Amino acid sequence: MKASRFFIGTLKEAPADAEIVSHKLMMRAGMIRRVAGGIYDYLPIGLRSIRKVEAIVRDEMNRAGALELLMPAVQPAELWQESGRWVQYGPELLRLKDRHEREFVIGPTHEEVVTDIARREIKSYRQLPVNFYQVQTKFRDEIRPRFGVMRGREFIMKDAYSFDKDAAGLAESYRKMFDAYVRIFTRIGLEFRAVAADNGSIGGSGSHEFHVIADTGEDAIAYCPDSDYAANVEAADALPLSATRAAPAEEMKKTPTPGKAKCEAVADYLNIPLERTIKSIVLATDNEGAEPTIWLLMLRGDHSLNDIKAHKQPGLAGYRFATEQEIIEWFGTPPGYLGPVGTRKPVKVIADRTVANMSDFVVGSNEVDYHTTGVNWGRDLPEPVVADIRNVVEGDPSPDGRGTLAICRGIEVGHVFQLGTKYSDSMGATYLDESGKPAPMLMGCYGVGITRILGAAIEQNFDDKGIIWPEAIAPFEVVLCPMGYDRSDTVREQADKLYAQLQEAGIDVILDDRGERPGVMFADWELIGVPHRLVIGDRGLKEGKLEYQARRDTEATLLPVDEAAQLVIGKVRAALAR
Amino acid sequence: MKASRFFIGTLKEAPADAEIVSHKLMMRAGMIRRVAGGIYDYLPIGLRSIRKVEAIVRDEMNRAGALELLMPAVQPAELWQESGRWVQYGPELLRLKDRHEREFVIGPTHEEVVTDIARREIKSYRQLPVNFYQVQTKFRDEIRPRFGVMRGREFIMKDAYSFDKDAAGLAESYRKMFDAYVRIFTRIGLEFRAVAADNGSIGGSGSHEFHVIADTGEDAIAYCPDSDYAANVEAADALPLSATRAAPAEEMKKTPTPGKAKCEAVADYLNIPLERTIKSIVLATDNEGAEPTIWLLMLRGDHSLNDIKAHKQPGLAGYRFATEQEIIEWFGTPPGYLGPVGTRKPVKVIADRTVANMSDFVVGSNEVDYHTTGVNWGRDLPEPVVADIRNVVEGDPSPDGRGTLAICRGIEVGHVFQLGTKYSDSMGATYLDESGKPAPMLMGCYGVGITRILGAAIEQNFDDKGIIWPEAIAPFEVVLCPMGYDRSDTVREQADKLYAQLQEAGIDVILDDRGERPGVMFADWELIGVPHRLVIGDRGLKEGKLEYQARRDTEATLLPVDEAAQLVIGKVRAALAR
Repeated sequence: MKASRFFIGTLKEAPADAEIVSHKLMMRAGMIRRVAGGIYDYLPIGLRSIRKVEAIVRDEMNRAGALELLMPAVQPAELWQESGRWVQYGPELLRLKDRHEREFVIGPTHEEVVTDIARREIKSYRQLPVNFYQVQTKFRDEIRPRFGVMRGREFIMKDAYSFDKDAAGLAESYRKMFDAYVRIFTRIGLEFRAVAADNGSIGGSGSHEFHVIADTGEDAIAYCPDSDYAANVEAADALPLSATRAAPAEEMKKTPTPGKAKCEAVADYLNIPLERTIKSIVLATDNEGAEPTIWLLMLRGDHSLNDIKAHKQPGLAGYRFATEQEIIEWFGTPPGYLGPVGTRKPVKVIADRTVANMSDFVVGSNEVDYHTTGVNWGRDLPEPVVADIRNVVEGDPSPDGRGTLAICRGIEVGHVFQLGTKYSDSMGATYLDESGKPAPMLMGCYGVGITRILGAAIEQNFDDKGIIWPEAIAPFEVVLCPMGYDRSDTVREQADKLYAQLQEAGIDVILDDRGERPGVMFADWELIGVPHRLVIGDRGLKEGKLEYQARRDTEATLLPVDEAAQLVIGKVRAALAR
Repeated sequence: MKASRFFIGTLKEAPADAEIVSHKLMMRAGMIRRVAGGIYDYLPIGLRSIRKVEAIVRDEMNRAGALELLMPAVQPAELWQESGRWVQYGPELLRLKDRHEREFVIGPTHEEVVTDIARREIKSYRQLPVNFYQVQTKFRDEIRPRFGVMRGREFIMKDAYSFDKDAAGLAESYRKMFDAYVRIFTRIGLEFRAVAADNGSIGGSGSHEFHVIADTGEDAIAYCPDSDYAANVEAADALPLSATRAAPAEEMKKTPTPGKAKCEAVADYLNIPLERTIKSIVLATDNEGAEPTIWLLMLRGDHSLNDIKAHKQPGLAGYRFATEQEIIEWFGTPPGYLGPVGTRKPVKVIADRTVANMSDFVVGSNEVDYHTTGVNWGRDLPEPVVADIRNVVEGDPSPDGRGTLAICRGIEVGHVFQLGTKYSDSMGATYLDESGKPAPMLMGCYGVGITRILGAAIEQNFDDKGIIWPEAIAPFEVVLCPMGYDRSDTVREQADKLYAQLQEAGIDVILDDRGERPGVMFADWELIGVPHRLVIGDRGLKEGKLEYQARRDTEATLLPVDEAAQLVIGKVRAALAR
C-alpha cells in the first residue's frame, strides 16, 4: 500500500471522552471514530488490524474442526421467550418492534438461535459432536458505554457453540476450544493467561476466561508464575498460611487499646505483627417470623473478605451485613472492638482457614477501647467452623502446590464455558442416542471479543509515542519512510525497490510517499504503531546504508542497503511464526 | 474438507413458503434456514459461497483503489434527520430506541454515516478523491419479505461511497466502479448486463444497474445483442420505426366499426395491419381554480404507453387518467372510439415518434361504432407535438444505431449511482479547494447485493437435480465420491490420494467419506451443485479408470486414474481465470 492512496487520519489530541490509553490511541491513530455512545466507525487502518485478528481466529477455529456459519443480528423474541432470557436479560438486551409490531432483539449472543438450529438439524447421535462458530457483529446496550472498543455497544465477536452427546464429549470439545484459544492469543503475540472462573484448575473447571495481562486491566488475577494456575482473585483458593496450629504460649488477657478500632492500629499500639490480629466481620441472615441469625466471620488482620466465597457457605447464601442495632444487641457493644469471646447472645463463628491455624491471637473484647490477646482455639473458644472466605494475596501458596501466587491485572478477551443442558432443556434440543431414545445435547459456548482484542493489545503495548503492535495484528508490518521521495531519484528508486521486494515476500508494507516532513512521518507511524521502520535518505545511501528501527528500539541501526529487506523479512516472519 | 466432519443439511422437500427456484434450492441444499420472515441463518455450505463472493468483491474493490472500512449497523437518528431521510424513508427503515430512549435505526444503507465521516475527516482537496467501501449486514424492513435471499430483510451488501472534487472526478470514480463491477460479475461467472437506469448510454448516464440474466428475473431489460447497449424496458429510448413520413395516399373517411373498440379488433374487422391503427390515451392535468387540461397521447396500435416517459413531458409531470365524465365533455363520446379529429373541446395532442411518421392511419371518430381511416398529419390534423412516450419492443432499432433490440429478464445484483451533492449539501460535507474556498464534495454510491448474488446465480444456473454453481462461488469446486470408502482399501487409498493431490493444488475439494449409498451421495452433491465430480469405484479401478462428470454433463466420462487430478485441476483453474 502506498500512503498517498491510503487514508491516514491521525490526530494530535484525543477527544475528551477518551479516558483510557487504548481509547485515546485508537482515536489518535485514526483507527476508530465515534458515531454514537459505544458505537464506532472502524476506519481503514483499524479495520486492517481487525481483519488480521479475525483471520487468526478463523484459522484456529477451522483447525479445531469448528464449522463457520452466520446467524442473524436481528432475532425473534419468541426464541428468547423459550429460553427464558427474554425476562432474565436486563436492559442490555436491545429490544425492538418491526413494522408489523412483532418483537425482536439485536443479538448480544446467539445461544437461542444456535440451539434452534441444533434442535431442527441434529436428529441422531451420528451427527454429534458438532461445533458451529461465527464472526459476527453484536449489540449490548451498556448503560454507560466507555473505554472505546473495550466496553462498546456494537462490537464484533467470534462465538462458537459445541453440541455433544455426553459430558465426556463436552469435556473434549471444551478442551479443543481451550487449546485453540491458547494458540490464538499466542499467535496474536499477547501476554495472556487462561483464568479459571471458579477453582483455577483447567481440568475440573466448567469455565475459563482468557485475559490479556495489562496494568490497566479491570480484573485482578491470581496466578502462579511457576505453573499454569490462574484464577480471578475472587475465585482463587486461599490456602491456610500455616499447615498446623502451634500450641498456646500465652494466657488470654484483656488489654486496653484506647481508640484503636482497626487491626493495623491495634498491632501498632501493641507492637505486634498485624498477622497476629483478627478482623471480625458481623453478618446477619433473616429468619421468617423469628430473630435473625448473627454470624461472626474471622479473618487475619491483613486479609479481606471474599463476598463470593462467603455467599457459598452453608446458611449464608442470602447474607447481609448486620446493623449497628443488631451488633449492640448480640455483642453488647457497637462495632470496633468485637470478638468471639463473651458475646451477649450466641453467634455462629466461621474462621478463615488461616485463622483456624493461628494461636495466641488478638481479638476485640466486646468492650470499647479493649482487645483480648493470647486467644486460642479449643482453650478459650470452641473449635470453629472453618472455611475459605478470604481473597488471596500476593505470596499465598498456589493451590496447585507448585509455588506461590502473584497478582496481576487483566483484560478479558475470551471466555470458554460448559453450558451443559441449560438451553437444550429449555428449548428442547434433543437427539436420538444409540438406543434410539431422545437425550438432551450437551452444549458449550466459546467467545472471543475481536474488537476488544485491539484495545487489550494496546493496553499491553504502548509508550508515550503511541501504539506498539505485535506484528500479527499490526495494520502494516513495515513502513518505508523515504526522505524526499518527490525530490530525489535515488531515494525514490531505492524506496520503490524495497517496496517491491517486501511485497514480493508477502510482507504487509506501506510506503510513505506523501511527501511529509520526516518529523510528521515518524510521528504518524510511531503513533499508529507499525513494528518495523526503514528510513531511506540520500545521506545514508551515499554510504550504502539505511536506517532500521523496530518500534520498541530507542535508536536506529544502520544497515547495508542490500541486506535491509532480508533482515526485515526475517524479523516479521519470525514474529508471525509464533 | 471431509464430509464426515462437515455439516450437510440437504432436504427432500422445500418448505411451503419457498416460491421461487433459488429459494427452494437454497433451502433443500442446506445453505440457508429461516429464522423469521426475511431473516436467515447461513449454514456452513451457504456461508462458503458467500465468502467466495465477498473475496472477489473485495479483491476488485481494492484493485480499483477503494479503501475498506466498517461502519456500524446501528445508527443514530440524528444523522438521518440531517439528511432528511428520517422523514422521507418509509417503514422499511427499522427504527428503535435504546435504553435511554434515544432513537436509532438499523442501517439499510450508509450514505449518512459515510458523509459524516467525510465531513469530519476530509479537509482539503489534497485528500480527494477517496472511495470508502464496506462489506456489511444491512436491514430493510420489507413489508412482505419473500423469495429467500432475493428479497430478505437482513442481508449482506458491499456498499462503496466515492468523494470527489468535481464532476469530472466523480465521472472517473464512477467509471472505475463500473469497470470493477464488470470484472466482479465476469469473475463470478454469471451472464449479466450493465443496464442504464435512464438512457442506456454508459458515458452519459448517472446510474447503472447490473442485472444477472434469468428468465425468472423481476425486471425486463432491452438490450442490443450487437453492442453493449442495455436499459430497463421502461428507460430505453424508443426510436421512430420509420425515419420519414410517406405522402398521403388515401382520403380521410369515416367507417363503421360496430362494437370494435380495441385496435386489434378494428384492424381485424377492416382487414388492415395493426400497425396502421392508432391507440388514443386520454390524460388530464389539473389547473387550480380552472378546468383541467385534457391531453390526447397517440401510440401505434401495437405499442404501449410508458408512464415514466409520459411523466417527463412538459406539462405532464402530475398527470392522471381522464375520467369518463371528462372524456364525454371533451370528446362528445365515452371511451372506445376516441380520436384527434373533431373533438368537442380543444385537447393537447402528443404523438409518439413512430406515430408522427405514419400516414393514412386509422383513429376513432369520436362517435360510438365508428373509426376514421386515411388520416394524415398536416392535411387532416395539425402537425403534432412529438415525443418518445412508448415502451420499446423486441425488434426496435437499438438507440446506439448498432442493431435491433432484444428483450430479456434480469435480477438486479449491483447498482452504481452518481449522487452528486445530495448528501454533501444537506449534511455540509465540504472541502477547501485549491483556492482555499469551501466546496461541496461530489459523491457516488455503489452497491453489490452479496447474498442476493447467490439467489441470482441459482436462478440462472439450475436443473431438475439442483443447483449448478459457477466454480468461482461454488461451496466446493470438486467432490470425490468413493464407492465403499469404508469397505475397500483400494478405493479408500485412491480417494485419499486424489484428495491430497487436489488439496495440494489449491482446489476446494470435499471427500464424501460418509459411507452413504451412491444414490444418496450423487443426489446430495447434484442438489448442492458442486461443479465437478469424480467417482472412485473398485470396478473402474481394476481397469485403471475413474468416472468424471461435470455438473452440466448428462453422462460420465471414464478417465485414466493417473490423469484425473490434472484434468480436474485444469478445468477448475480455467474457470477461475475468467
